[in-house]
Amino acid sequence: MKAITLANPDDKTSLTWSEAPTPEPGTGEVLVEVKAVGVNRADLLQAAGHYPPPPGVSEIIGLECAGVIADPGDTGREKGERVACLLAGGAYAEYVAVPVGQLLPIPEGYSFAEAASVVEVACTLWSNLVMVAGLHEGQTVLLHGGAGGIGTFGIQLAKQLGCTVAVTAGSAEKLATCRELGADILMNYREEDFAEVLKNRADVILDIMGAKYLDPNLRALAMDGHLVIIGMQGGVKGELNIGRLLSKRGSISATGLRGRDLEDKAGIVAEVVEHVWPMLEDGRIRVSIHRALPIDRAAEAHRLLDSGEVTGKLVLTVD
Amino acid sequence: MKAITLANPDDKTSLTWSEAPTPEPGTGEVLVEVKAVGVNRADLLQAAGHYPPPPGVSEIIGLECAGVIADPGDTGREKGERVACLLAGGAYAEYVAVPVGQLLPIPEGYSFAEAASVVEVACTLWSNLVMVAGLHEGQTVLLHGGAGGIGTFGIQLAKQLGCTVAVTAGSAEKLATCRELGADILMNYREEDFAEVLKNRADVILDIMGAKYLDPNLRALAMDGHLVIIGMQGGVKGELNIGRLLSKRGSISATGLRGRDLEDKAGIVAEVVEHVWPMLEDGRIRVSIHRALPIDRAAEAHRLLDSGEVTGKLVLTVD
Ligand SMILES: NC(=O)c1ccc[n+]([C@@H]2O[C@H](COP(=O)([O-])OP(=O)(O)OC[C@H]3O[C@@H](n4cnc5c(N)ncnc54)[C@H](OP(=O)(O)O)[C@@H]3O)[C@@H](O)[C@H]2O)c1
Ligand SMILES: NC(=O)c1ccc[n+]([C@@H]2O[C@H](COP(=O)([O-])OP(=O)(O)OC[C@H]3O[C@@H](n4cnc5c(N)ncnc54)[C@H](OP(=O)(O)O)[C@@H]3O)[C@@H](O)[C@H]2O)c1
Repeated sequence: MKAITLANPDDKTSLTWSEAPTPEPGTGEVLVEVKAVGVNRADLLQAAGHYPPPPGVSEIIGLECAGVIADPGDTGREKGERVACLLAGGAYAEYVAVPVGQLLPIPEGYSFAEAASVVEVACTLWSNLVMVAGLHEGQTVLLHGGAGGIGTFGIQLAKQLGCTVAVTAGSAEKLATCRELGADILMNYREEDFAEVLKNRADVILDIMGAKYLDPNLRALAMDGHLVIIGMQGGVKGELNIGRLLSKRGSISATGLRGRDLEDKAGIVAEVVEHVWPMLEDGRIRVSIHRALPIDRAAEAHRLLDSGEVTGKLVLTVD
Repeated sequence: MKAITLANPDDKTSLTWSEAPTPEPGTGEVLVEVKAVGVNRADLLQAAGHYPPPPGVSEIIGLECAGVIADPGDTGREKGERVACLLAGGAYAEYVAVPVGQLLPIPEGYSFAEAASVVEVACTLWSNLVMVAGLHEGQTVLLHGGAGGIGTFGIQLAKQLGCTVAVTAGSAEKLATCRELGADILMNYREEDFAEVLKNRADVILDIMGAKYLDPNLRALAMDGHLVIIGMQGGVKGELNIGRLLSKRGSISATGLRGRDLEDKAGIVAEVVEHVWPMLEDGRIRVSIHRALPIDRAAEAHRLLDSGEVTGKLVLTVD
């Protein structure tokens, strides 16, 4: 088969579409013929050597795709079935082996490209907001980077759950996008102190900044609040005021989706299909594809994402 | 009625047994005639002015007691019923008003003094280990201060839950006590680096040291582990390595029992009566009373606890 590999290991943009061994489905796995792949910021990190795959996982880049089952292996699934896939790696290829618990149906009315673009974000948001932090109706949630990939989906999901949604973003235009998606409290992080605005009101915070926002997040947190950190764009080490955390009976979790075991991932996927897929199918949550490029132009897609000019998702198509 | 008050507000040891207004039971409260009171380290803090009662709570010291219902108020409970009580304050007195959800039966075979000595510790341990951290069979739990009031009860409870129990303590004698109670992994915190011994193995950690142990606790934590901080004997502010937390998908909670609302406390009390009381009644968990003193000698009891010479619980008896 063909797959994206690095022509020059020292150059993270030297992605080429070249020959690679076709994977074989192991026990409990199917082989999927890839039709479309979602591009994630983590893919850029991995190409740059900063986000190695967990032990036992393909070296090929790519965390989500959609396609058809080419070989059901021992799983009893149907050859030719259209599926979307949550992956720890391997999506930038013609074929990928997928644990059966990480297969999702294609949402009704969705193309392969659209389906490939929602798996990672839906699983990240549902697992963190709902399964880790217990977000529910009537609560206030703060989403940092409201206009980003996680943010734009997260605003719509949290509104569907019946929450008040606060967001930060870096410009008035981006905040306008957030408002259109339903966000209630809009904060420009270049001009406002979100901790001062939200003071003690955020029941749940989904953070992507890490150290830089640790203390302001605690100040924004409500009693019994839960801060969930999924990114460290603002640094790894920060001072924790335990007294402040204790005075709020607060919790802090830091999580990643990729390293979870098969059982965990299957549990997340099942909940996402049950709760989030219907919201996609009837349009309660809308996603937008910024651009779809043929997969042999993966390097171009990575440069585009790196430029910061992308709103909505980039997708690579395999024909 | 009589109650313990500070004769001299500037002298935390000037506790005297003197006249105070008898409380009136409010909606959903009973009036309890106090027979015995458990002494907690928090009582010393409050006497010293460092742990003020939450808004609306009696200024009188005392977080747990046992006695009989003197006035059932509007609750429909029986006058004369023997009860133990979880309190936010007010126990060092002849009478105390108690929300009905914070009444527990006296464990079968228990004296008032014994019952008064177990409420706070049982509710603290169950709420944190089980309800917050989800401790369950097969897991490894680290209890700091294994020979202290929380520790000695916690070891026995965690063994009953089917866990491997690791403890720290400050001397060989204290570790021997922990071993007798069932602890499996014994670490002298003056001689050993518990983080090195436990490295990545503790599913749950109950911490009383705060800042000083923040990083070693993270090093001891297992994948998906949960650190619950209930004391800050080692300081309030510490550096949090978010990268380390994320690499373990870890969680940190900091909690207190006293400030929880009525509904939360009633939920905790109900679980404690269901799960922990039977362990007291059939001797699976044993508690020891270091000494019982008449309540007018409360000052002496506080000095005794402050000396660090107490193993087991101090109790004050009324009349
Ligand atoms: N742990 C996991 O399982 C997991 C899974 C998926 C994603 N993630 C992480 O989540 C983060 C977001 O992912 P994404 O796909 O949404 O990426 P993205 O679309 O590139 O978004 C990055 C976001 O960061 C925001 N940002 C930058 N500086 C900020 C600041 N000082 N305050 C608030 N926001 C700031 C940007 O806001 P503006 O554009 O408005 O400046 C932008 O919305 C990334 O760090 C990613 O690695 C983690
Ligand atoms: N948040 C809440 O709801 C709540 C409720 C109850 C209690 N607490 C807190 O929990 C803590 C323990 O309460 P307790 O009633 O068990 O008090 P205690 O009987 O006085 O115990 C104090 C413990 O601290 C231990 N300790 C001191 N320095 C240590 C170190 N460097 N490393 C490990 N352990 C160390 C002592 O161990 P050695 O004697 O072996 O030196 C002792 O076991 C207190 O801080 C209390 O305020 C909190």
